[in-house]
Amino acid sequence: MDIITLSMGSGGKSSSDFVEDMILKNIGNDILNNLTDSAYIHIDGETAYTTDSFVVQPEFFPGGNIGDLAVYGTCNDLAVSGAKPLYLSLSLVIPEGYQIDTLGVIISSIGKASKDIGVQVVCGDTKVVERESLKGIIINTSGIGRVVKKLNDYKKIKIGDAVIFTSDIARHGMAILLARGDLKFNGNIQSDSCHLYNIFDKIGYKGIEFARDATRGGVAAVLNEIAAKCHLGFLLKEKYIVIKKDVKYLCEMLGFDPFSVANEGVAVMIVSKEHAEEILHLLKQCDEGENASIVGEVVEKKGVALNTLYGGTRNVDIPAGILLPRIC
Amino acid sequence: MDIITLSMGSGGKSSSDFVEDMILKNIGNDILNNLTDSAYIHIDGETAYTTDSFVVQPEFFPGGNIGDLAVYGTCNDLAVSGAKPLYLSLSLVIPEGYQIDTLGVIISSIGKASKDIGVQVVCGDTKVVERESLKGIIINTSGIGRVVKKLNDYKKIKIGDAVIFTSDIARHGMAILLARGDLKFNGNIQSDSCHLYNIFDKIGYKGIEFARDATRGGVAAVLNEIAAKCHLGFLLKEKYIVIKKDVKYLCEMLGFDPFSVANEGVAVMIVSKEHAEEILHLLKQCDEGENASIVGEVVEKKGVALNTLYGGTRNVDIPAGILLPRIC
Repeated sequence: MDIITLSMGSGGKSSSDFVEDMILKNIGNDILNNLTDSAYIHIDGETAYTTDSFVVQPEFFPGGNIGDLAVYGTCNDLAVSGAKPLYLSLSLVIPEGYQIDTLGVIISSIGKASKDIGVQVVCGDTKVVERESLKGIIINTSGIGRVVKKLNDYKKIKIGDAVIFTSDIARHGMAILLARGDLKFNGNIQSDSCHLYNIFDKIGYKGIEFARDATRGGVAAVLNEIAAKCHLGFLLKEKYIVIKKDVKYLCEMLGFDPFSVANEGVAVMIVSKEHAEEILHLLKQCDEGENASIVGEVVEKKGVALNTLYGGTRNVDIPAGILLPRIC
Repeated sequence: MDIITLSMGSGGKSSSDFVEDMILKNIGNDILNNLTDSAYIHIDGETAYTTDSFVVQPEFFPGGNIGDLAVYGTCNDLAVSGAKPLYLSLSLVIPEGYQIDTLGVIISSIGKASKDIGVQVVCGDTKVVERESLKGIIINTSGIGRVVKKLNDYKKIKIGDAVIFTSDIARHGMAILLARGDLKFNGNIQSDSCHLYNIFDKIGYKGIEFARDATRGGVAAVLNEIAAKCHLGFLLKEKYIVIKKDVKYLCEMLGFDPFSVANEGVAVMIVSKEHAEEILHLLKQCDEGENASIVGEVVEKKGVALNTLYGGTRNVDIPAGILLPRIC
């Protein structure tokens, strides 16, 4: 049997076999292996809880696939909330006829990514739907983490705080766009999909006032939302914002604003001025933070302004309309 | 704007408006309203964690819709694990062009079901995909509950324990089949979709050794799985198993075994013999348990056997192959 069949999601014998052979062999652990209706876990105190469904097409792209993307994406939501990721749920919706080998690669990537971060997939669900009703696989991961320091309180943000992008921007969106193959040329842009908990752990949270990951809508969406919520503004300096050359050229050629293009491995950190340089130093020691940069500061004037390379100042607006490509 | 657009899932302004107008207005609460990357919740001690994706077609059926089904389904997984449902995540994958009014009814059902159970939806995600890549809406709910008494330890099951079905069986699967409209006749079978925490709370867990909800694969799948895991067997008496007349006739007419047809409001409870009658009495005082019945007992002989109405005995096998209709 080399393709997924409806019976594998039906709750009968094929379902059990599928769970044993595909899921437990790749990502089994002491909790998941019990296959109870709910996983029993032990948690104490302040907890972070998040969910994300992943529908990215294509499912494989330079730098990752929908499997590790799902694990990283959900764990990053926990990490930027100031929590250590502990437990994940994994729910698959698969079209009938899907290649089992392909699914095997995805599930094994989920296993590897979970191991790298130190989280366990403890509960799951598999549904198989008629082939004509769904184009590709859909993966939902929810996640639970232990809060180390809450990083989502807008009131902590004050004028003079520094803004850090933990990596170069716009890589994931452009990588997906290229991988879709709709363009008439090729390229070699790697997604930045990676996990971010490491860098928070490395810094030890000292001086970090607030954090968000800049996924859909890019840094533009995130910064505008933060600015609106804290009733302050940001002044960014274009010269400090790292964008890889090929990403920049592709954005220019296609008319994308790199500030609105999605990332999967970039956190926006708002840090106290006196800790900014030290945090940057620590970030640069991590693989995930080697392109980190202090890109601007919190100012009184609302909105998001950018001092451009050419000496002018422009607003960085919240993206409106359809943000192509869909990236997670 | 009366249909869902791609931009509503893109992370920009339309996304924010969608979340405000559709989600927060219907199911907002003090935690969800913060719209942080992760919800901050407080949990102490033994916790149950579960996930389910719902892909049922049609999305509306007699007795419910995909929205309350998702809430009940996930909360029931917590309930049969012996946990009080506390928090839910809600992740929507919606095809572009979906009617906003229809979605409104679904989200409002989610709100009503959550309120009935006393759970809060605290985190969520919305993705919109191209209309040609997905037929209907997909809803994932994961859930967190506080463990009152663990009900998933196979070692607790002993010979002589009584088996209770908390309601009549096979209603949900048959309701969905009729609602699909593929048959050349109509009927009026209501799904049993409901929440089960109430009945556990009412009983107070005394005497309950083990519980499972009998969804995909019906009571046959659940009982066979339990029998295999506890290395014992079940002897059921057909005369005590409640199946509504119209459900029974439809199953017979179409060649379905009602034991393998899915339920959404039936728990299989394994209870100590001395508490069985008292538990049944308490169950029958609940709306969800008015058709509860002691249907058999745990025996040494492995597998699941049924004393039929006609005096014979047959095996109730684990369902193999495709179990139509897909029901959740």
